[in-house]
Amino acid sequence: MSTTRRTTKPMVPADLDHWLADNDQRIHDELFDFLRIPSISARSEHNPDTRRAAKWLNDKLTSIGFTSAVHETPGHPVVLAEWRKAPAGAPTLLIYGHYDVQPAEPLELWTSPAFEPTIRDGKIFARGSVDDKGQLWVHVKALEAHLAVRGTLPCNVIVLAEGEEEVGSEHLAPFIEQHKKRLACDGVVISDSAMFAPGIPSILSSLRGLAYFEINVEGPNSDLHSGMYGGAVVNPGMALARILATFHDAKGKVAIKGFYDGIKPFTAAVRKGMKMLPFKDTTFMRELGVKALGGEPGYTTLEKLWTRPTCEVNGLLSGYTGEGAKTVLPGKSMAKVSCRLVPGQDPKQIEKLMKAHVKKVAPAGVKVTVTHLHGGKPWRAELDGPLFDAAQIALKAAFKRDAVIVGEGGSIPVVGDFERILKAPVLLVGFGLPGENAHAPDEWISVDNLRRGLRAMAVLYEEVAK
Amino acid sequence: MSTTRRTTKPMVPADLDHWLADNDQRIHDELFDFLRIPSISARSEHNPDTRRAAKWLNDKLTSIGFTSAVHETPGHPVVLAEWRKAPAGAPTLLIYGHYDVQPAEPLELWTSPAFEPTIRDGKIFARGSVDDKGQLWVHVKALEAHLAVRGTLPCNVIVLAEGEEEVGSEHLAPFIEQHKKRLACDGVVISDSAMFAPGIPSILSSLRGLAYFEINVEGPNSDLHSGMYGGAVVNPGMALARILATFHDAKGKVAIKGFYDGIKPFTAAVRKGMKMLPFKDTTFMRELGVKALGGEPGYTTLEKLWTRPTCEVNGLLSGYTGEGAKTVLPGKSMAKVSCRLVPGQDPKQIEKLMKAHVKKVAPAGVKVTVTHLHGGKPWRAELDGPLFDAAQIALKAAFKRDAVIVGEGGSIPVVGDFERILKAPVLLVGFGLPGENAHAPDEWISVDNLRRGLRAMAVLYEEVAK
Repeated sequence: MSTTRRTTKPMVPADLDHWLADNDQRIHDELFDFLRIPSISARSEHNPDTRRAAKWLNDKLTSIGFTSAVHETPGHPVVLAEWRKAPAGAPTLLIYGHYDVQPAEPLELWTSPAFEPTIRDGKIFARGSVDDKGQLWVHVKALEAHLAVRGTLPCNVIVLAEGEEEVGSEHLAPFIEQHKKRLACDGVVISDSAMFAPGIPSILSSLRGLAYFEINVEGPNSDLHSGMYGGAVVNPGMALARILATFHDAKGKVAIKGFYDGIKPFTAAVRKGMKMLPFKDTTFMRELGVKALGGEPGYTTLEKLWTRPTCEVNGLLSGYTGEGAKTVLPGKSMAKVSCRLVPGQDPKQIEKLMKAHVKKVAPAGVKVTVTHLHGGKPWRAELDGPLFDAAQIALKAAFKRDAVIVGEGGSIPVVGDFERILKAPVLLVGFGLPGENAHAPDEWISVDNLRRGLRAMAVLYEEVAK
Repeated sequence: MSTTRRTTKPMVPADLDHWLADNDQRIHDELFDFLRIPSISARSEHNPDTRRAAKWLNDKLTSIGFTSAVHETPGHPVVLAEWRKAPAGAPTLLIYGHYDVQPAEPLELWTSPAFEPTIRDGKIFARGSVDDKGQLWVHVKALEAHLAVRGTLPCNVIVLAEGEEEVGSEHLAPFIEQHKKRLACDGVVISDSAMFAPGIPSILSSLRGLAYFEINVEGPNSDLHSGMYGGAVVNPGMALARILATFHDAKGKVAIKGFYDGIKPFTAAVRKGMKMLPFKDTTFMRELGVKALGGEPGYTTLEKLWTRPTCEVNGLLSGYTGEGAKTVLPGKSMAKVSCRLVPGQDPKQIEKLMKAHVKKVAPAGVKVTVTHLHGGKPWRAELDGPLFDAAQIALKAAFKRDAVIVGEGGSIPVVGDFERILKAPVLLVGFGLPGENAHAPDEWISVDNLRRGLRAMAVLYEEVAK
């Protein structure tokens, strides 16, 4: 699965390599400033911070020589920066990233504060370090290296950074649609994913889609005394548990009718490639601190993570959750539930199936509503063409070994939009690592990967223009 | 079921009635001071408030002529006050109540602040208004009426108020045991329950017991990205839901093996009395705002509430519960679950059955622990004797109609302890009302019931001494 298409031994050009080394401290310092901005897109109280992050990024892109502007949307703004002075005939690359971050709760589980970047053991710990400010930063600074050292770029570059990736990118597809002539390009590069393992550069061949729901169960018009009312009133907490328990069968297969319909199997070559990757269930379990794995029977762990859909509880809330005992019969309950989707599934169809399923299993005596908070389509890459070839060379130059082709269980909803609207291939090349805690406390990015990523992307811009 | 054993038409003595009317404002004002103290026993950060409430009550009892002291326990203190100057041969009553209250969350659902008592529509709204500060206050002020007007009480009186009723009364039974000679009495009176309906004074014939658990499910050692890990890791939120869903069968019967073993049926007379009470499912449902009821099949609603055991979810917490969507695979989940018990069941036995059940159904890949937070035994009253007769007369004098005999679905764990240790009958006569929100936002007590309760108890002390 991992081959380089050219026989030369790729190298990072010395001038760029030296500039990146000389400016290493400043690259870190500025990234830390970026990471200190709590641009949590899901929380309206952080809207000023999210806007501040956009402005900060816009100013940085301007300062390195791009023409940049902050564009309003009905949600969080988009930063759009351009450099179009490449020689005639040079290709145009669009680099996409996001400056928004996940909420940081539970705060008490962070070793150092989520928005005060801290280096420990060669890792930068901060919310957004790997997802995605740090990875977006790789591109900004690789572009700066070219412009600072050589006064030019080998290709035209558009940088498009949104502030709604963590809440479903609702306004990005319309923005791309609206500006599709301006955004026309020969390829889209996205760094918002992880490498398979330390030292193994990776190109992503697939992403799972997403259908994210909130399920609300409403019972009596207020919380009740569980002694005075318990036993005759349908308990919204118990009703919710019983609904959630119908989402899977006893073996772990999703039991929502029609859920697996239309799934397009992955090619035998991709499945074979997966089996050749260095992966052990025992190591995976030890890292997670669990004694057994679960999920759909009949698939390997990597197949489950990359090629099979899921239905997961993301959150539960009902009644009394504080210290000690409170004998309350809760008036309501809530679950966040999301399905990861694979090619052949569609979030809108899954929404229909989920709503029909919940309607069927919801008990009398409570009102159950299912709200589709956001969705994204699954995606599968074309694994050839000049952009893919350039990436192989660039990664080998920086990491001194061939890249592997991997799947990814997460979702980057906009990938499909780029392909559909701009008719350009998308390259997903990321510098995170397993265990990076992307949506959890103690999120981190490897300092070494940050440095190698900068060099790899500096090479990529050159290679794609050859 | 409701009969008075004497043929006289009971009256509230005019001197006591007048004093209570003249002091009505002060009685309210002082109660409000009591209610303003957030003596939340479940929350250690409120320990100073809980202690302050004990001290406040102690001072009030001292000021009306009792010899009172605050007694330390390993938990919250006990207030013990005595008045022992009744004529030789007069009986001794022990009045029990509690000065601690439930937590007030969710605070945003209170119409007026939980600890700022407010009168609206003839109701005093405040946490603790009905459970149990307001009802304890009925006794304190009825005692003050006697002492203020007549300088004496018709019987000897012990007031025992604890601060741990809402968290299981752990240290009360040892306290009673330790002071059992001093607490020796002819009867125990407790006002911590509700009347069947407005205007219908009620004597309680049974209480359900309680076994309260916290169930914790631990999966991976931190919250994970649901995309990167979902589908291969056992989800603690989903695992919890599946465990909870096994607690009942499809019809609503508790499915924990052995749960119903040994239950002693209620007498046909009690069940017949229940059926004669004015109660309509349709009204009950309308008050609660639900369209259907649930629970164990084959019983009326009152039978389910008073004579049958339950298993209820009291709280759920896992993963992300804030605004919007966070694609997290939670590292852990928690449920508060409690069983209401009826005569023939024992909390320790239920704890064993619950733990065995959860162990059986818990999936591999997560660690599930069941902690028994507290328990209380169920109770059934002897419905005769001088205390019971006096109560019938007292209630008729104040409410101008015969009392009914009702059950109660809640738990007052100490009732069984009083009977067992002091060998004295226990009278449960309460002045709450249905819909009083005892453990919920907007808890209230009726001003009219407070006034009638004061008069009823003033008469009770007299009648019991006749």
